[in-house]
Amino acid sequence: MAKSKSTNRVEFIAIGSELLSPSFIETNSLFLAEKLEELGLRLSFKTVVSDRLEEIKEVLTVAKKRSRLIFISGGLGPTEDDRTRQAVAEVLNRKLIFHQSILDNIKKRFESRGLVMPASNRRQAYVIDGAEILENPMGTAPGMWLETKNQIFVLLPGPPSELKPMVENLVRPKLEKFRQHQVLRAIIKIAGAGESWVEDQIRPVYRMLPENLELTILAAPGDIQIRLSMLVKVSRKKDLLVFDRIKSKIIGLLGNKVYSTSGESLEEVVGRKLTEMKKTLACAESCSGGLLANRITNIPGSSNYFLEGLVTYSNQAKIRELGVPEKLIREKGAVSQDVAEAMAEGVRRKSGADLALSTTGIAGPGGGTEAKPVGLVYVGLAFPGGVWVEKNLFKGNRDQIKFQTTQKALDMLRLKLMELEEEKGSGQ
Amino acid sequence: MAKSKSTNRVEFIAIGSELLSPSFIETNSLFLAEKLEELGLRLSFKTVVSDRLEEIKEVLTVAKKRSRLIFISGGLGPTEDDRTRQAVAEVLNRKLIFHQSILDNIKKRFESRGLVMPASNRRQAYVIDGAEILENPMGTAPGMWLETKNQIFVLLPGPPSELKPMVENLVRPKLEKFRQHQVLRAIIKIAGAGESWVEDQIRPVYRMLPENLELTILAAPGDIQIRLSMLVKVSRKKDLLVFDRIKSKIIGLLGNKVYSTSGESLEEVVGRKLTEMKKTLACAESCSGGLLANRITNIPGSSNYFLEGLVTYSNQAKIRELGVPEKLIREKGAVSQDVAEAMAEGVRRKSGADLALSTTGIAGPGGGTEAKPVGLVYVGLAFPGGVWVEKNLFKGNRDQIKFQTTQKALDMLRLKLMELEEEKGSGQ
Repeated sequence: MAKSKSTNRVEFIAIGSELLSPSFIETNSLFLAEKLEELGLRLSFKTVVSDRLEEIKEVLTVAKKRSRLIFISGGLGPTEDDRTRQAVAEVLNRKLIFHQSILDNIKKRFESRGLVMPASNRRQAYVIDGAEILENPMGTAPGMWLETKNQIFVLLPGPPSELKPMVENLVRPKLEKFRQHQVLRAIIKIAGAGESWVEDQIRPVYRMLPENLELTILAAPGDIQIRLSMLVKVSRKKDLLVFDRIKSKIIGLLGNKVYSTSGESLEEVVGRKLTEMKKTLACAESCSGGLLANRITNIPGSSNYFLEGLVTYSNQAKIRELGVPEKLIREKGAVSQDVAEAMAEGVRRKSGADLALSTTGIAGPGGGTEAKPVGLVYVGLAFPGGVWVEKNLFKGNRDQIKFQTTQKALDMLRLKLMELEEEKGSGQ
Repeated sequence: MAKSKSTNRVEFIAIGSELLSPSFIETNSLFLAEKLEELGLRLSFKTVVSDRLEEIKEVLTVAKKRSRLIFISGGLGPTEDDRTRQAVAEVLNRKLIFHQSILDNIKKRFESRGLVMPASNRRQAYVIDGAEILENPMGTAPGMWLETKNQIFVLLPGPPSELKPMVENLVRPKLEKFRQHQVLRAIIKIAGAGESWVEDQIRPVYRMLPENLELTILAAPGDIQIRLSMLVKVSRKKDLLVFDRIKSKIIGLLGNKVYSTSGESLEEVVGRKLTEMKKTLACAESCSGGLLANRITNIPGSSNYFLEGLVTYSNQAKIRELGVPEKLIREKGAVSQDVAEAMAEGVRRKSGADLALSTTGIAGPGGGTEAKPVGLVYVGLAFPGGVWVEKNLFKGNRDQIKFQTTQKALDMLRLKLMELEEEKGSGQ
């Protein structure tokens, strides 16, 4: 009975003993599931197995009996515990063939960095007989696409930075022939609001949801995403209309708390706006400790609008670098509305940037008092003609408080840029 | 051959279609793996399967053939897609028995909240014949502990808030009888070397490895970990000696490339050293864009040694903030040995810190030329009496180049601190 269904089944196997330990989360399957879903394909099984050859072979033998499309990640490295090539070859009763061209590529990769290829990398030049090579520009392990009479085995490297581009650029196009459905998807990203507020706000939408439309809310401190996905037959206009109506309704209910409907991060959104509006930016950070500058500079091309960031951790640095009056720090404390103001204005003046952000607060775990608890953070934004400061009380650990601080700063910048754009648009 | 080993195998099965979607991460297995490890037990397989009865049964049939201890989570709820009870009963060829006492408990649970139990919850009062009931104070679904002739099946609720206390309070004590082993573990962390170099270096160790010692190399750009784990009989001193000898051998072969053997991150290691040696730190970043300051300030207490960081992204900021001569930038370029030197010295002078790091390079994806390609990064370290600059050519995307840059900077700082410590120790 299982056999008859096996023609359409898709499964994923992750290989690596570390993935069975308490501290590792396997994430390749999530990425793959997303790509498959876009083609209307769904995983039926996900398996994690150790590096042991016998156990890998057992799992492959099971997969061979029950699934049509079998994705395997990991175990393609150069070391002795990388046994995926061998296991798949043995289970399919095929030989491993040495490819000089792969070895040459790996050697070149090492040479371009002035290194000599270690002998162990030679293992990576062996390919299962009959498999098509999937090139890996991000690493030394090539992937493989192997079609047998009834099945397809896809061998992928374990590191997500190598697997993702390989799936996107090489595997996905080859999977198009399996497409039967399409999935309509939308991600609505929200900052500056809590999960329950969002849930309350979009309550009217729940009654409108058709059966095949899935709505998921993913909430992390400082960032909320509403994910919509709808599995529909290809080219059904009516479904498209329903989907768009619901998406628009949600966006309308959440107003300007929505910062992206195209998957962009907050730093991408403000980066795009700054570029469009030809505005420059600087920042002065205390409690966020460089995370704000780091997020801003993660965006390619940020050097066009980001002039500088100062991580003024000590009081001396705040005084010397930003011209924050010593008296102000003494009287109000480094974590205060006034110091946040002075920091934002100080870095704006100094850098000559159009807009300047500042953060000062207590990221914890130590340093909190009753009057100024861990999580108290002031975020400032200096702009032409003024400075805007918001007081926040964030929950969470040190990392989460740092993240929420930068999220707030970027969101204030986003709202200010929208305002400036509107003023300009209305001729002011 | 697999059969003979099956007596000792442990596996975990998570049931739920949502766990196969792109947005859900299954975490129960991580908690369980941790608890099992405390008893010296290791997972051999982890499987995620949909809510479909036939597919659950297939996975259970495979598990029944290969493992002794089988943990199953999820699918014990009251709805029609909760099919774990039925699937296990059918695979083991046992009946489901109605228990009035369970139903009474569920009813009471609803009543205590002023609610009437929906009829669907009646499903939860059925128990597989022969199974012991595991009470669930956190929810309506009881768990089950079922011993057959050669195997144990443990059925657990899916929500982590229900599974965790059940495992901790009811399952763990019952597993004590399996404790025969303990796991010895070590993590050796390495910076400033590639995976193949590490592999080549430790090759002599492979020949010394006993069967029960597992060695795994985890490699990410800029960071490598060697993980050792060894399953040993409780209180066998000889095993402990073997384990320590191998660990020491590896550390010896890798020399000062090893930055931690206790799990610490590089920023923790340098933070601890700076604190112990009462040294202060500042940094000036160009291509790492704040990531270096961010990593340094991720460590609680970093405000005691970290004075300030400057993210001097524009040339103007390098000139104004750090006193880098304009002529130098014009003649050598912002990405050069000389500018890295001037940046490190500039921020050290300005901040009064004992040690100061600098980074300048091309993080990409744009901005590269033939002479100065993407990935070219100079990292500088100014210290009392000098400045040390290293030229690097990193591979990878923007994030990876930024990360490797900061890894290199922190590692240079680590090596310099070790050197200073030795000089002091030797009376210089």
